[in-house]
Amino acid sequence: MKRSATRIRTVMGEIQSRIASRTYTPGARIPSVRAMAQAMQVSVSTVLEAYERLMAEGVLNSRPGSGFYVAGPVAPLVLTELGPRLDREVDPLWISRQSLDTASDALKPGCGWLPASWMFEAGLRKALRTVARSDTSKLTEYASPLGHLPLRQFLSRKLTGIGVEAPLEQIMLTESGTHAIDLVCRFLLEPGDTVLVDDPCYFNFHALLKAHRVNIVGVPYTATGPDIDAFGAALLAHSPRLYITNSGIHNPTGATLSPVTAHRLLKLADNSSLVIVEDDIFGDFESAPAPRLSAFDGLSRVIQIGSFSKTISASIRCGYIAARSDWIESLVDLKIATTFGGGRLAADIIHLAITDSGYRKHMESVRLRLAEAMDRTVARLRAIGIKPWITPQSGMYVWCQLPQGKDAATLARACLNEGVVLAPGNAFSQSMAAGDFLRFNVAQSGDGKIYDVLKRALSA
Amino acid sequence: MKRSATRIRTVMGEIQSRIASRTYTPGARIPSVRAMAQAMQVSVSTVLEAYERLMAEGVLNSRPGSGFYVAGPVAPLVLTELGPRLDREVDPLWISRQSLDTASDALKPGCGWLPASWMFEAGLRKALRTVARSDTSKLTEYASPLGHLPLRQFLSRKLTGIGVEAPLEQIMLTESGTHAIDLVCRFLLEPGDTVLVDDPCYFNFHALLKAHRVNIVGVPYTATGPDIDAFGAALLAHSPRLYITNSGIHNPTGATLSPVTAHRLLKLADNSSLVIVEDDIFGDFESAPAPRLSAFDGLSRVIQIGSFSKTISASIRCGYIAARSDWIESLVDLKIATTFGGGRLAADIIHLAITDSGYRKHMESVRLRLAEAMDRTVARLRAIGIKPWITPQSGMYVWCQLPQGKDAATLARACLNEGVVLAPGNAFSQSMAAGDFLRFNVAQSGDGKIYDVLKRALSA
Repeated sequence: MKRSATRIRTVMGEIQSRIASRTYTPGARIPSVRAMAQAMQVSVSTVLEAYERLMAEGVLNSRPGSGFYVAGPVAPLVLTELGPRLDREVDPLWISRQSLDTASDALKPGCGWLPASWMFEAGLRKALRTVARSDTSKLTEYASPLGHLPLRQFLSRKLTGIGVEAPLEQIMLTESGTHAIDLVCRFLLEPGDTVLVDDPCYFNFHALLKAHRVNIVGVPYTATGPDIDAFGAALLAHSPRLYITNSGIHNPTGATLSPVTAHRLLKLADNSSLVIVEDDIFGDFESAPAPRLSAFDGLSRVIQIGSFSKTISASIRCGYIAARSDWIESLVDLKIATTFGGGRLAADIIHLAITDSGYRKHMESVRLRLAEAMDRTVARLRAIGIKPWITPQSGMYVWCQLPQGKDAATLARACLNEGVVLAPGNAFSQSMAAGDFLRFNVAQSGDGKIYDVLKRALSA
Repeated sequence: MKRSATRIRTVMGEIQSRIASRTYTPGARIPSVRAMAQAMQVSVSTVLEAYERLMAEGVLNSRPGSGFYVAGPVAPLVLTELGPRLDREVDPLWISRQSLDTASDALKPGCGWLPASWMFEAGLRKALRTVARSDTSKLTEYASPLGHLPLRQFLSRKLTGIGVEAPLEQIMLTESGTHAIDLVCRFLLEPGDTVLVDDPCYFNFHALLKAHRVNIVGVPYTATGPDIDAFGAALLAHSPRLYITNSGIHNPTGATLSPVTAHRLLKLADNSSLVIVEDDIFGDFESAPAPRLSAFDGLSRVIQIGSFSKTISASIRCGYIAARSDWIESLVDLKIATTFGGGRLAADIIHLAITDSGYRKHMESVRLRLAEAMDRTVARLRAIGIKPWITPQSGMYVWCQLPQGKDAATLARACLNEGVVLAPGNAFSQSMAAGDFLRFNVAQSGDGKIYDVLKRALSA
């Protein structure tokens, strides 16, 4: 009796999760009682009872002689109900919300950004004082469709500097870097398309792509870029529409794309319809500029996006897209339709800060500080048996492997209870193959308490 | 020979527009040559030639014995290629871009916002000077998942004031009002769903819904809200998922929802799965508060959204959503996945400005100025034969009918050549039934040149 009740609930749960994931949409006929019983290896009466309870709840309805149908409107897009249910510690949505919850005074070596005290504070305050005195129209009016001209001019020059020819009409501003990728996804993707990501990659790419209901395929990332054989095989096997990656400094590994990998990757893409989004968010942290896919490709199939949230401010939202000019035209229409005008003031503040004579000097000191913090953090981690996968040339991240047999999610849970927020590897890994990895942010790893807590948790 | 070439191009154009609108997706088999010939009333050889040319262009491919298929990846989402091609003058995308192009020094009686000089400039500058001195974390860190707490507290109190019970956990901040509606659409809609809008309504609703590829059904708007009989009929005929409307002051008509219409509308929705988005963007312009659907409904099926772009600044982007708390939970996840953190600084500035003791006084003077401008504009328009549909109780818009036989799009084209940007009625009308209407913004209609140009164009 009890077991049959469990089985009924299992069938009900299965139907409801298929509705939540929109596998079954309203009006669709669901499998017959007999077919479902066979598929789930339960009795016909179990399925019948499950269907009848779902009818009573208004989830299904029946048409005499023709079967059972999904009732009501399409289920809302609840990201947490899409795909397999994840442990909280490796759930991208949970990690993002945990990191963004600034009320918490926890230590955050797992967090993705610099401490507030490392940011370009003086320049920002100066920029704010300047805009407080600027024209009324700057303070009150919408941005132009492509966005604040002086910032686009700055970006055009900056891109030229790293070898990317991007005239003004090929650059548009967005509300943020994530918004830039989201617009490209809306422009190019249909639910069910396949998108390649690096494995591991920035965990919010998973959440973003989930919201677009595409198939995500991970390509193993090596110390010089994606594994080229695996990349070629994925191209053949999945005809992906898009590949999203970081160049410059890779999140979470801190690795750097090599010219030969960049060249081979683009050659592989030659006879495909693949579009590549290159997220250049960490460019200003590089000590020596790495190759850019967008430079090799000439912004033909590669779209470069970026933002200023890691260097100037995450509080002032502004990002950009550099792409083929016909694509920019359509992307501007999509941007206006879905967010209307951009944040003119934000772009103005960012432009003032980034062209401030102090900015270059500030970033030099940040790079120095990061290099020191990197050495120190790596030494302290090694001392407790946590080994860096590679020693990054620059940036704030170091991707580390735990001693054998240790699980990062378990460790993260234990450390969270002691006020230390970690970033466990599987949050970054589409294949869930990074269960013994952690990403450390060296700028957030200065406090000795972190290592005490880690050591205790490791020996537990 | 010539005529046959035209017919071939017509068939090619038809196929290409169906691919652009994603009616035909990659891999889909298109109608057989014979079926297409019959459907388009052309010869089999015409269709065959069209299909072969499309094969040569790589748009189609064929499988021996099995017909013609759509080749390549799914077409990018080009908004201008969706739906019927519109005259530039009534194309929502063109109108938005034209209005946003601030380089132009044209007169803009068709524009949707106040002149910069009417905005709360002193309060804004003060707020900027205050944030320039604030904590570094406010200047550099991401916002919390729901958004800046003090602004949400302010909104909660404000909503209570207009009868909408909205505790803090039912309010989240967004990047803008348009972003708020877009998030709700992503949460609730599938391509092919039906959405009701007012006819006429804010033109960007059309563009936004186009981006979601839903069916848009217009319900005629009366002086007291949507036509209730037509609304009931549309509910029955289309089972719409969403209805998007303005309460308070309606864009473009300036009309006000009456309590009896609000009550009847919600009663009609009772047995449906309809969700209602109430855009409250013009609330602060009301002299006496009109009923709100969200107040009557208690934020059950009604979602209220709003922003500060019409009163504080369009340059500093910030909006909000007030809704059921379980929906807010899912909407926060969607927001983080697609834009990551919100604009903390923008929310902070808006909060400082809107709680400034001068704001209330400023809005009082804006309302007075608008009332005076309304009287003056109506009188000047009447003098040249342009009649208001109703005299709005408040707000900046007046919806006007041209003298018999005059076409608003033609007039808009003529006036644009003389540096006057108008907003022709059909841009706002899903049914294209407002060809002899124009929306005037009384705050942008002070310059006598506007009436000279209108008069000349009308008598041409």
